[in-house]
This record gives sequence, C-alpha cells and structure tokens, in this order.
Amino acid sequence: MTNETTNGRTTGSVVAEISTSLDGFVAGPNDGPENALGDGGERLHEWVYELSSWRAQHGLEGGTTNETDERLAESVENTGAVVMGRRMFSNEDGPWGDEPFEGHWGDEPPFGVPVFVLTHHPREPLELGGTTFTFVTEGVDDALERAREAAGEKDISIAGGASTIRQCLRTGLLDELRIHLVPVLLGDGIRLFDRSGDRIELERTRVSESDGVTHLEFRPA
Amino acid sequence: MTNETTNGRTTGSVVAEISTSLDGFVAGPNDGPENALGDGGERLHEWVYELSSWRAQHGLEGGTTNETDERLAESVENTGAVVMGRRMFSNEDGPWGDEPFEGHWGDEPPFGVPVFVLTHHPREPLELGGTTFTFVTEGVDDALERAREAAGEKDISIAGGASTIRQCLRTGLLDELRIHLVPVLLGDGIRLFDRSGDRIELERTRVSESDGVTHLEFRPA
Repeated sequence: MTNETTNGRTTGSVVAEISTSLDGFVAGPNDGPENALGDGGERLHEWVYELSSWRAQHGLEGGTTNETDERLAESVENTGAVVMGRRMFSNEDGPWGDEPFEGHWGDEPPFGVPVFVLTHHPREPLELGGTTFTFVTEGVDDALERAREAAGEKDISIAGGASTIRQCLRTGLLDELRIHLVPVLLGDGIRLFDRSGDRIELERTRVSESDGVTHLEFRPA
Repeated sequence: MTNETTNGRTTGSVVAEISTSLDGFVAGPNDGPENALGDGGERLHEWVYELSSWRAQHGLEGGTTNETDERLAESVENTGAVVMGRRMFSNEDGPWGDEPFEGHWGDEPPFGVPVFVLTHHPREPLELGGTTFTFVTEGVDDALERAREAAGEKDISIAGGASTIRQCLRTGLLDELRIHLVPVLLGDGIRLFDRSGDRIELERTRVSESDGVTHLEFRPA
C-alpha cells in the first residue's frame, strides 16, 4: 500500500503512535469512564501538552516549537484517516442505546479526518465538529480498508488502544510503530505488549529525544 | 556514595545494565539449566558479541570498535565489584551440596573483580580463574555494603537478573540504569519490570544508538 516519494518518505503508511512508560504501560491501573488514562496515566502525555502543534490541533494557542513539535505537525498533516478501538472512543459498550454516549472526545474532536471505530455493535455514523466517527463491526481488516479509501495517499493512524496496535502488528498490517518513551515506572496498568507468544523482528528506523521523552521509531522487518 | 570527578563523571555509582526486548523481556520463555537465556533470549545479546571490548573481556581477539564499544570498555574499566542474583550464578538452588555446581561462567569468568552472589544458602567463597564469588545470605543491602568495600571508589555493577535490579531500584539503591533496547518482540519470557505497584520517576540521562540496539540511560529522580 505504501509508495516511496522523491524525498524518500513513504506515503500511505499505516502508523501507530503511542506513549508508554519505561515499564511498558500505556495507561495506569483502575481505568474507567471517569479515569480514561488510569491512575497516573496522565503522566505519559505531559510531554505533548506543551507542544505548539498539539495545542493548535486542540484549539489552543502558543506552546513550544522544536523538532518534536515539527514531527508531530508533520504526522498530523500526513494523516488521512484514523482507526481506533472501541474503548478509545467510549467506555460505554454496545449494543448502543437510543442516545448513546458521544465518546471521550468532546464536541470538537481533534481529528478533522474520518475516524473508524472498531466495535461489535452496529451504530449509525456520528458527526461531531468536523469529525465523522464510523462504526465498523467487521474487524480490523475491514476498518483499514475503509480507512484506506478515506485516506487516499495519506497515512492511516492507528490511535490505539494497545490491543488494536498489537492486532495490527501481529497480522502484518502495521508499517510503522512510533513509541514515545516516558522515563517513569507506572508500576501497574495496561501494557502495550502482552505475552502473545509471537516473536516479531523490527528494524529501528529513528531515535530522537526531547524534554522528558525519547521517541523511538520502528518498522516490522 | 557517589563522587563527582573533575570531568563530571560520577564515580562509586551502583549501575545496572541489561539488554531487553522492545516488549520488555530480558530472557525468553522456558529458561533452565540448559537454556540460561530462555528460548530466543540469545537474540538480546547478539549486538554485544561483536564488540572488541566484549571479545577482549572473554579472551577473544578482533571485533568492532565504535562508540558503543568504547562505552562498554569504560564501563568494564570503572567496575570494581559485581552483585548478582543466585540464578545469574547458577540454576542449581541451595542448600549447596558437597560438590556444588561452579556456575554458568566457566573456568575463566569474565569479571576479574569480586562478585557477590545473593543466595539464601551459605557457601564458602569460590575462586575461578581470577574471579572470587562470595555468597551473601543477608540480603541485597549487605551485598552492596561488601561490594562497596571491595570496589573502593569504583562502580558496583548489578549484573541482574531482573528481580535483583528491581529490588535495587525499589529500595533506592540504584544510581544508574542502562537499558540496551533490542528491536524485537520476544512474545514471552522474563520481564525486566513487573507489576510492583510502585511508581518511580526517572531522569533520562543519555541516549545513543548502534547497529541493531538503542542504549538508554536513566537515573532515579
């Protein structure tokens, strides 16, 4: 699906990007409707809140401009569609009622591109402030196919959670894995990687550092 | 215990250094007497076998000379004593018999400095080709105290395994944690970090890359 451009960048990639603690957690323990990131999980995202491009994406002004910020801006710019697991959208589980929860993302979700939500329960598409959430019940392959149509030559971003990323990695659907490694041990929570029993070789393609976080990029070998 | 030298290096540190997979394993599954690194665990150490300083330490000639190699040579040079868990020494468990196993390390162990082995069972010191293994039954604090006496102003290396490193980290005894991150998912095995429930903040002090491995250094904050 990917194409090499003249400057060597690969377009049309399926990219997963996630912040983890040094002990491998992407959320703290006791996550739930009122505690989406789990206890202490907010710590994993502190580095991003001050970046100018993150702030712009969330309707805020100001912020830091540095290499990480440029990289994030580039990543947002290159994204043509998003795929996410049901829990990334909502803690409410289906079957969806008559007035289902409109998700974690508020009235103005920060995506601005079509979002495909994996769920076992059919639901009509939901439009919120310029973002359309489409609910896909036929599995991750189907979601990626629909995201590819929506994204054209742009990248598809796998927004998480951990199990959706693992599934894409295991089935060979992922082109790039970007881990933002935060120097904290959370001690408990939701792990990015479980004991799948599958050995997967990767190639490290890029390492960079910014204040309080190390950015590691990999490509399945 | 540490002292700042004129060039800014801290001497007399307690340093743990370990190779892990991207999914956080330091050994593969099914480890045992004939399979010390577990299934596939050898993969985590491939990067080091070609380094000139590792080869010299193990009585071999040749090898690659690069920044990682220099760093390893420096680390060996700065080490005045080693502390290791019992399983790093031997898969045999005590009480030690009349002719106990002489450990994983062969007739010429690569240490050349006093090694303190944590065990629950007393045993006379064992000298093998210039390395003396002393068996410590009073716990990790006592082992570190004895290692400090032996090391003088040099560093103490915590050679592992994972549980010994975790114990030093949790009790605040560790000054530096160096992780050699290998871009593979092992899928199962022995994890460096468990669900301790303890949140520990670290500071990332250094990142460097070499062929097939990323070196990440941290200091407990």
